[in-house]
Amino acid sequence: MNDIKNRLVALRHQMSKNDIAAYIIPGTDPHAGEYIPDYWKERDWISGFTGSAGTAAVTLDKAFVWVDSRYFIQADDQLKGTGFAAMKMGLPDTPDMLKWIAGELKVGDRVGVNPLLFSVNAYATMGKLFAAHGISFSSIDLIKDIWSDRPAIPSEKVFAFDVKYAGKSCSEKIALVRKSLSDTQTDMLVLNALDDIAWLFNIRGNDVDYNPVTTAYASVSFDKSVIYISSDKIDDNLKAYFRSNDVLVKDYLDIYKDLPNISTDTKVLIDGNKLNQSLFECIKTEVVNTLSPVAALKSIKNNVEIEGVRNAMIKDGVALTRFFIWLENNVDSGTLSEISISDKLYKFRAEQDLFYGESFSTIAGYADHGAIVHYKADDSSDANILPEGILLLDSGGQYLDGTTDITRTISFDTPTSQQTADFTLVLKGHIGIATAVFPIGTRGSQLDILARKALWDRGMNYGHGTGHGVGHFLNVHEGPQNIRMDENSTILQPGMIISNEPGLYRKGEYGIRTENLILVVEDQTTDFGEFLKFETLTLFPIDINLIDKALLTDKEILWLNEYHQMVYDKLSPYLNTSEKEWLSQKTKAI
Amino acid sequence: MNDIKNRLVALRHQMSKNDIAAYIIPGTDPHAGEYIPDYWKERDWISGFTGSAGTAAVTLDKAFVWVDSRYFIQADDQLKGTGFAAMKMGLPDTPDMLKWIAGELKVGDRVGVNPLLFSVNAYATMGKLFAAHGISFSSIDLIKDIWSDRPAIPSEKVFAFDVKYAGKSCSEKIALVRKSLSDTQTDMLVLNALDDIAWLFNIRGNDVDYNPVTTAYASVSFDKSVIYISSDKIDDNLKAYFRSNDVLVKDYLDIYKDLPNISTDTKVLIDGNKLNQSLFECIKTEVVNTLSPVAALKSIKNNVEIEGVRNAMIKDGVALTRFFIWLENNVDSGTLSEISISDKLYKFRAEQDLFYGESFSTIAGYADHGAIVHYKADDSSDANILPEGILLLDSGGQYLDGTTDITRTISFDTPTSQQTADFTLVLKGHIGIATAVFPIGTRGSQLDILARKALWDRGMNYGHGTGHGVGHFLNVHEGPQNIRMDENSTILQPGMIISNEPGLYRKGEYGIRTENLILVVEDQTTDFGEFLKFETLTLFPIDINLIDKALLTDKEILWLNEYHQMVYDKLSPYLNTSEKEWLSQKTKAI
Repeated sequence: MNDIKNRLVALRHQMSKNDIAAYIIPGTDPHAGEYIPDYWKERDWISGFTGSAGTAAVTLDKAFVWVDSRYFIQADDQLKGTGFAAMKMGLPDTPDMLKWIAGELKVGDRVGVNPLLFSVNAYATMGKLFAAHGISFSSIDLIKDIWSDRPAIPSEKVFAFDVKYAGKSCSEKIALVRKSLSDTQTDMLVLNALDDIAWLFNIRGNDVDYNPVTTAYASVSFDKSVIYISSDKIDDNLKAYFRSNDVLVKDYLDIYKDLPNISTDTKVLIDGNKLNQSLFECIKTEVVNTLSPVAALKSIKNNVEIEGVRNAMIKDGVALTRFFIWLENNVDSGTLSEISISDKLYKFRAEQDLFYGESFSTIAGYADHGAIVHYKADDSSDANILPEGILLLDSGGQYLDGTTDITRTISFDTPTSQQTADFTLVLKGHIGIATAVFPIGTRGSQLDILARKALWDRGMNYGHGTGHGVGHFLNVHEGPQNIRMDENSTILQPGMIISNEPGLYRKGEYGIRTENLILVVEDQTTDFGEFLKFETLTLFPIDINLIDKALLTDKEILWLNEYHQMVYDKLSPYLNTSEKEWLSQKTKAI
Repeated sequence: MNDIKNRLVALRHQMSKNDIAAYIIPGTDPHAGEYIPDYWKERDWISGFTGSAGTAAVTLDKAFVWVDSRYFIQADDQLKGTGFAAMKMGLPDTPDMLKWIAGELKVGDRVGVNPLLFSVNAYATMGKLFAAHGISFSSIDLIKDIWSDRPAIPSEKVFAFDVKYAGKSCSEKIALVRKSLSDTQTDMLVLNALDDIAWLFNIRGNDVDYNPVTTAYASVSFDKSVIYISSDKIDDNLKAYFRSNDVLVKDYLDIYKDLPNISTDTKVLIDGNKLNQSLFECIKTEVVNTLSPVAALKSIKNNVEIEGVRNAMIKDGVALTRFFIWLENNVDSGTLSEISISDKLYKFRAEQDLFYGESFSTIAGYADHGAIVHYKADDSSDANILPEGILLLDSGGQYLDGTTDITRTISFDTPTSQQTADFTLVLKGHIGIATAVFPIGTRGSQLDILARKALWDRGMNYGHGTGHGVGHFLNVHEGPQNIRMDENSTILQPGMIISNEPGLYRKGEYGIRTENLILVVEDQTTDFGEFLKFETLTLFPIDINLIDKALLTDKEILWLNEYHQMVYDKLSPYLNTSEKEWLSQKTKAI
């Protein structure tokens, strides 16, 4: 605690010295990452708050961390005695952070941020808001000189990702990016998003949790491609690999020397939602700010990637079959817990071919914990699992041939009529998406209601998106495609993989979510145009014990029975007799 | 023809004199109107093309009018021998107009437009595109000096719209606008949209077809409200009316003198999708470009307006009942035509209390004409109506208490199975919207799929929006609310009136559309939030002869039967015995 207090004193000293009236410290990194390496955990270091989301703001006499409802308790706990207090977002009295800062400051005051930690677009939005209040806004890193025992930038080894899994070579991908540059009349692309870089160069790494990426920057122009990466991370083989693909290797921070010196007629393409402000400030030439062409290319999986995912789904389904058999056989012991079953599930996945790790931290939400959407059990919350009530289990694997993400909700005893009604309404939404047919040009937000209609009709809803894009042996959360209530101008195109995960949450009781991954495929071409549909990729039974058949239409029952038949047909060749028998019971027609 | 050729020569003379390499002449006016007074029909005058949409572009040696598929034939016909040719939008070889101009010109050339005829946002978009090609872009009116026999600006009389219909007084509305100014931290609103002005001041007029509006500009600031309008149009009573509401009356063009002279600290709110560039160029102070607060206020009908519309719907339903009885009794004669029945329908509406005129030009599309979405019969196309096949009739009335818009599709004989299937799938979509339940915050684009799902599932679709906002004794097409595939950030709020009009069009065969107006109302508030739904306002039977009951769900049948019961209950008190008998047959339960 005293450590934190001293850090706050040191920061305020830096602030006065630099004429900064308020300093904002976010929980982000320079690479638009979901998982932040320790080196960039400036907000954790300055405040002591370790949640996955939350932003600190410090004035010369006040200090707060804005956190969402997931972290109200944790923030109170971690911030006690630090000089910081929690600002609980969503509560009626909690001010918006930027407005609060504007209210604390006076005209002419300066707000500072580390430009490494903000996207170009986020930085611009903040700048505009402060300008409207007559407050100036500056890029300044006040942490670097006071954080003495800072961890190192991650330097885990990088490996080349075999084209037999990637489907397209690095050279082919670079050629596609150059075509995008040509189409957009730009000359150079600058990349900071680690999954974009991993996809483009067909490399993978271990620098952050769950996402098999490596810390680097990159640029592609017509005459050269450069990866900016620490030389410690790449061995001679990888050097040869880059050379063979005409990729120049430079040191990680050399991009800060190169960008200011590009020729003055270079039009640079950036994705302002991802590129950090610090790199942006190095570009002195004309900039086109739009969706990264790498993100767009990466979102449409090629046939090798798709076949890989189909194969990964079989392995994931086999692992889940063995896990759920084990769970059923052991739940009566009363000794299982949310964490212990997550560990066990990991072991079953790890037995599968080409398994690399989890694609995110398993959410095992037993009973009322299931109603906490982003729940993650820790030592203090870890609930004992008894042979009663409802378990929500959301988990996924990284395999070299694909990334999986599946949620199943099961009941250990006879469910209540409210539970079966809730489960079945969520299932109706899941089937609504799974069976959707839509013309080329349709956006995810147009389909979202299909997942919610059965709930909305009864005055119910869920507070998260229906589906996120999924990478191929890459980030389990991948843009730009999704299915959400919010607008997103991205149209759904064949080859895109998205999750289909409607849910329903009853606080203090239980949570329900049924999630499969789905692939956009062609349906038919008629006089009225070209139509698309989804193919469900995930292979594991949906708990029929939780279904109220009377709430399903004939078509919905047909979908479920056909889905279960497919699950059985695809998984059973890899199962032993008793496993087959179990799966046959779980997939029997209703 | 020679006239037109001479005009083109005169325009090119003006272009060379002013160093303009290309001049664009749109089919628009300074007031963002749907119906253009003759005075502003610059494109019609220069090219001879009279369609409701289409833009001319003239270089020193080429001249084209870009038209959509509705006008391919008419444009070829009207442009013959004029020096102009048609550019047919949507055909594979037709270039985009702006790109075509950019291709014809060289770096440093100048493009000119009359800034009166372009919205601020459209002007900015064009300017950006040309700038990217090194072409400059200027505001310059080259028509005014060469159009000698130009018609006058409309000067029809204006009348005050009684608060007993409007529900809110002019003063109350001005107070609401001032609150919006205060909320947006702006000081002055400038208005050019005629329906915004009519709504704000509770006035109506006759300057354009179908929309009961009057030509004017307006501004509202905290210390004064000004209407800029020709003094010929307002009598002493109206002058007194404006005075009593503290509205200053100035001459129509005085706004061009006033705007450049507002105090330098005046922050001006404009709606850049509507305000013309010419007015915008007069504003020298800071501008906030956003949706007009008048448009937002106007879109949410007050209870008096809503009760008025409910009453207008009864009158409209009674008129339609009488019309369709007459049609059934006379179709066998073989002498009816699309135009003659439209005239007859007008007469039935005109017999109703508070009738003011049609809300748009009736679309009577018999047989294959029904498949032409924006069909309007003229002397050459006017089809004879025989007692066979399908008629699509889309029409509406302006009543002092409300605006109506209804489409019915009827069959004169035994429909084919394709016809009943098509009609029923469209009806399923109509019912999908009519019965929708959705949380507060939902946008129309999220609901649109409910109107299309039954069609999409079978590879079918329709190429127009599902619903447009509707004014109250004002424009039948009113923003910002709508239900379309396209994104629109407007959320649906209680009090908004929208059309519900899915359709299906089989080229060369027939068209089907079923349209009612619907009102957003509250549904219920639950633990999951506040939910809204629609109330159907339009009262007239849907042709049960065209329904394939096997395609409807029980819930859809229930909706139809309940709707028909309501139609009968609400209309029958105003009908005589034989009319009641007819309506009872048409509304019998299926």
